[in-house]
Amino acid sequence: MMTIGMLLFPEFELLDVFGPLEMFGMLEDVSIRLVAEREGVVASAQGPRSVIDDVFADDADYDLLLVPGGRGTRREIGNAALLAWLQAKAAKAEYVASVCTGSALLAKAGLLDGRKATSNKLAFDWVCAQGPKVDWQRRARWVEDRKFFTSSGVSAGIDMSLALIARLHGAEAARQAAHWAEYRRHADPADDPFA
Amino acid sequence: MMTIGMLLFPEFELLDVFGPLEMFGMLEDVSIRLVAEREGVVASAQGPRSVIDDVFADDADYDLLLVPGGRGTRREIGNAALLAWLQAKAAKAEYVASVCTGSALLAKAGLLDGRKATSNKLAFDWVCAQGPKVDWQRRARWVEDRKFFTSSGVSAGIDMSLALIARLHGAEAARQAAHWAEYRRHADPADDPFA
Repeated sequence: MMTIGMLLFPEFELLDVFGPLEMFGMLEDVSIRLVAEREGVVASAQGPRSVIDDVFADDADYDLLLVPGGRGTRREIGNAALLAWLQAKAAKAEYVASVCTGSALLAKAGLLDGRKATSNKLAFDWVCAQGPKVDWQRRARWVEDRKFFTSSGVSAGIDMSLALIARLHGAEAARQAAHWAEYRRHADPADDPFA
Repeated sequence: MMTIGMLLFPEFELLDVFGPLEMFGMLEDVSIRLVAEREGVVASAQGPRSVIDDVFADDADYDLLLVPGGRGTRREIGNAALLAWLQAKAAKAEYVASVCTGSALLAKAGLLDGRKATSNKLAFDWVCAQGPKVDWQRRARWVEDRKFFTSSGVSAGIDMSLALIARLHGAEAARQAAHWAEYRRHADPADDPFA
């Protein structure tokens, strides 16, 4: 059983969260947990609300830690409790992945220092400023650096998730997931028309 | 203000719901409502739970009515209250759109009789059986027939949503939404490699 912890915070971006969870949700023996600082419900940037499964105080560990973006990242970048939770959970996770401006949170927590990473192209300069020691890649659909996967904006998280599924379960598993979702995958991380 | 009503039922497919809502959520003056038969929380097929905004008994009307798929459709196809609600709300909506096997529910409610429509390619025969008077299109990313938009499986709902945004607000609005989400749009409804 692989446990996936998806961080949520107020004003998270809907597709950053549910694009990857659609893909990982097709795997067998997966448990998906939505995690936030406090119990209850978290509202997305677009309005729809999600129910939290775990809170930081539960101190649960996850095999795969996922961090979305969304305009809420502008506030959470100053949330010391969230950054400390990311540091603790990333240390124990087998893989850590972010979508869009989620990489700003990983960078601010110091987790990407000395690593290659990418982010949303429309917020790139702001993201870079959160991690001056990160080797930011401006042209990339997603970037893999050891256990850290970071993707470009919003829908790029789907391609990154398929790359991570390929790493975990092989190329055929990724191909099947994309086919089942009728998704036309972009399998080359350097193919980035939005750079 | 455009009100969007997204139907939810247990075991809805995550990306069928949140792919379209990501795109429509970028429009100005949009109110997104998650609607279900009963109050409270609805769990997706993948596990994550959403909080309901409106229930059928509220009898609210929506400018755009959205219907997702997911394995829950196999049960809801026999839910008379849901089919009656679809009939009543579709009659008042300016546009009605479905993703994946959501078109089976529209078909069962008689809303697609005599119209062109499509659905998920991996469940196509089951969907066709729910609406023998529908002019089912086996090769289509999505199909437009007057106020009804139906899409193929899962991620095709994103392309259909962009086509509907183009209809509502013009081609530039759709281009901007796709660009912002770093989404590589498929703008030709006949371009369907999954047929």
